[in-house]
Amino acid sequence: MEHGVAAHTWFALALLILAAKLGGEAARRLRQPSVLGELAVGVLLGNLPFEGLARLAKGPELTFAAELGVMLLLFQVGLESSLREMAKIAVRAGGVASLGVILPSALGFGASTWLLPHATPAVHLFVGATMCATSVGITASVLKDVGALGSEEAKMILGAAVIDDILGLLVLAIVSAIAMTGGGMPAPATLARITGTALAFVVGAIAFGTLLFGRVYRLASSLRTPYVLGALSVAACLLVAGASAASGLAAIVGAYAAGLLLDDVSVAPFNDKDATGVQHVEAFVAPIAAVFAPVFFVRTGMSVKLSGLDGGTLALASALVATAIGGKVAAGFGARGKNLDRLTVGFGMVPRGEVGLIFADVGTRIAPGGIPLLSPGVYSALVAAVFATTLLAPPALAARIRSTKARSLRNRESLEQEKS
Amino acid sequence: MEHGVAAHTWFALALLILAAKLGGEAARRLRQPSVLGELAVGVLLGNLPFEGLARLAKGPELTFAAELGVMLLLFQVGLESSLREMAKIAVRAGGVASLGVILPSALGFGASTWLLPHATPAVHLFVGATMCATSVGITASVLKDVGALGSEEAKMILGAAVIDDILGLLVLAIVSAIAMTGGGMPAPATLARITGTALAFVVGAIAFGTLLFGRVYRLASSLRTPYVLGALSVAACLLVAGASAASGLAAIVGAYAAGLLLDDVSVAPFNDKDATGVQHVEAFVAPIAAVFAPVFFVRTGMSVKLSGLDGGTLALASALVATAIGGKVAAGFGARGKNLDRLTVGFGMVPRGEVGLIFADVGTRIAPGGIPLLSPGVYSALVAAVFATTLLAPPALAARIRSTKARSLRNRESLEQEKS
Repeated sequence: MEHGVAAHTWFALALLILAAKLGGEAARRLRQPSVLGELAVGVLLGNLPFEGLARLAKGPELTFAAELGVMLLLFQVGLESSLREMAKIAVRAGGVASLGVILPSALGFGASTWLLPHATPAVHLFVGATMCATSVGITASVLKDVGALGSEEAKMILGAAVIDDILGLLVLAIVSAIAMTGGGMPAPATLARITGTALAFVVGAIAFGTLLFGRVYRLASSLRTPYVLGALSVAACLLVAGASAASGLAAIVGAYAAGLLLDDVSVAPFNDKDATGVQHVEAFVAPIAAVFAPVFFVRTGMSVKLSGLDGGTLALASALVATAIGGKVAAGFGARGKNLDRLTVGFGMVPRGEVGLIFADVGTRIAPGGIPLLSPGVYSALVAAVFATTLLAPPALAARIRSTKARSLRNRESLEQEKS
Repeated sequence: MEHGVAAHTWFALALLILAAKLGGEAARRLRQPSVLGELAVGVLLGNLPFEGLARLAKGPELTFAAELGVMLLLFQVGLESSLREMAKIAVRAGGVASLGVILPSALGFGASTWLLPHATPAVHLFVGATMCATSVGITASVLKDVGALGSEEAKMILGAAVIDDILGLLVLAIVSAIAMTGGGMPAPATLARITGTALAFVVGAIAFGTLLFGRVYRLASSLRTPYVLGALSVAACLLVAGASAASGLAAIVGAYAAGLLLDDVSVAPFNDKDATGVQHVEAFVAPIAAVFAPVFFVRTGMSVKLSGLDGGTLALASALVATAIGGKVAAGFGARGKNLDRLTVGFGMVPRGEVGLIFADVGTRIAPGGIPLLSPGVYSALVAAVFATTLLAPPALAARIRSTKARSLRNRESLEQEKS
């Protein structure tokens, strides 16, 4: 028989869960997103002399737990929107979203080319790709805090962020595949093949999911075993994620696609029972993601070696922060519509949050010829840039919304004074 | 950085989850406990030429998932009772429970000694220990099905089954420790040390938990991070399970102890929030256990090699089924109280279910000097015996309850006729 799981692995998992929750709590008390606290606690644990913990955190068991957590997190994000909604939003927020992908990637690519003259084009592409992520969760929670979730700007930001997720994951898929082929700029034929694979996967997943999900869920709804809906949905997520990984894309791309594909229509046959739509699947997946996803962020923090933060890394990190903010704020001016504060839209798209971290992590696991694509220094610079955008964006966004509100109030008052 | 999780691992996990649910469903349709179906599907998968799946199922990732699932399952079982209730039940059901541990272990030890003359005493002890398990879950679901959950017999059965869990885990702990020291019968001093360690762990866990759980939960209840109660409880389970494993006992002993220690009193500080007692922790843990524990049972089935079922193994399996049923039925006659049907009590304690399988699994992972304590043949015989008791007990119990009801109804009618 096989070996069992060692006692130390259970201790390490418990420790990472508790550390993540304490870090998240500290961040919340400072009115920051939890993910920042989880990351900071990870940086602390990773830079103290806890070699045993670091080794266990990178072992197969906790790697599995962390990746499963992030997979189910992306699945949850996907569940929050459906293909139908997506099509509607695309028309209005498409401009902001496209600019929000193109500008930061181009600026990130430029900064990387400038500051890392000896790196391969694949590295520059990857740095650029990481810059195009937008964290829906963080932006949504700030908008909720300042009571602006119903505003035109909020709809524009959230719509664009969701499209950014898809476009970003597509860019990530293409760039990963390019990096895997060697590191140099690929021939046009190779590029066409890679883009084709990524698009084929997305189209295939949509077609497959639309055709199959409804039928499978209708069949499964007649089963009497407990937790059928939840277990089936987790299995569906794992299968699409596995297919994504097997076709050379990141597993999270598939997990997100599975979430998008699963909507109230496919879950509808279960509605006669205790389940009520996709919320039931979310409620099932939430505890698993709540336990394991924070493990991912603590581990990410642990990978940042402060001793490796030399001048070059800090310069790269600073340049990336500037391009990351500049690119998204400029993209905000692509918003169409009257009476929109375009700076609010731009600020809302700045935080990279967990999505940026997941992108950076993918980059360290691509190792053409055995050498990781992203060196520890580049990785640390990326994580630092993600950290900074996530830290700076929420207060800037909140302040901008408050001052815009105050200004429009003053304008209305002066208009009324003129009338009277 | 480390390697990521391979696409095949995600596929294998999805496959095992789906196979488990389908097997469980088939069992339910045949009015059998789900665990039997999960086991049968595992035997099927393990004896078809799916070498790749078998290799992945025993890899570190799925081993982790399966053990985590079983750990959280035992944690849930522990949550269902508290130390307080335990003390009350012990007085009434103590006799049945003690006999239910002593008789089957002794008979199992005897059968093993007789049929495995070349095995070490540690093997005989282990076979005996596996025979003393009682599955609360399976018995409870049968009693519920026939509408007899409120009867005196049911209280006696469930009380004895819970005490059997504790006594059985204690026996398992002691026997595992003995087996780890070599294989022969240990010297009295060694035996005393091992029993001391096991008792010290149980007493220590109770003292530690009683002192600490209340305080930690009170402190944690002031945290604002989402899922604090659930994440803290999972971490507590992992820590006590890890401590159990580190002190030479099985990790599941600790997981069960953590569940026993956690009661409504320790969870009470959370009651002001959305949480309401220990049910909230159960609801949080349930999805994680529902996804991962079935993976354990499918894997267990996969370890049973039908090609290895020779005459000797079948003879051992038959002898174990006889002693397993005989021992528990005889224990039923130790029940104190009037108007009790002692055969009902005995039948109710026969199913070994998941607890027996978990015990057998522990035996394959003890490998003094690199050789697993239980050979594939002995392991298969144990699993077959567990399977048979779990298959035979529910219909026998249901039939006995129905006939007893009918008889007491006839008696009452004839009494009333005499009166009139």
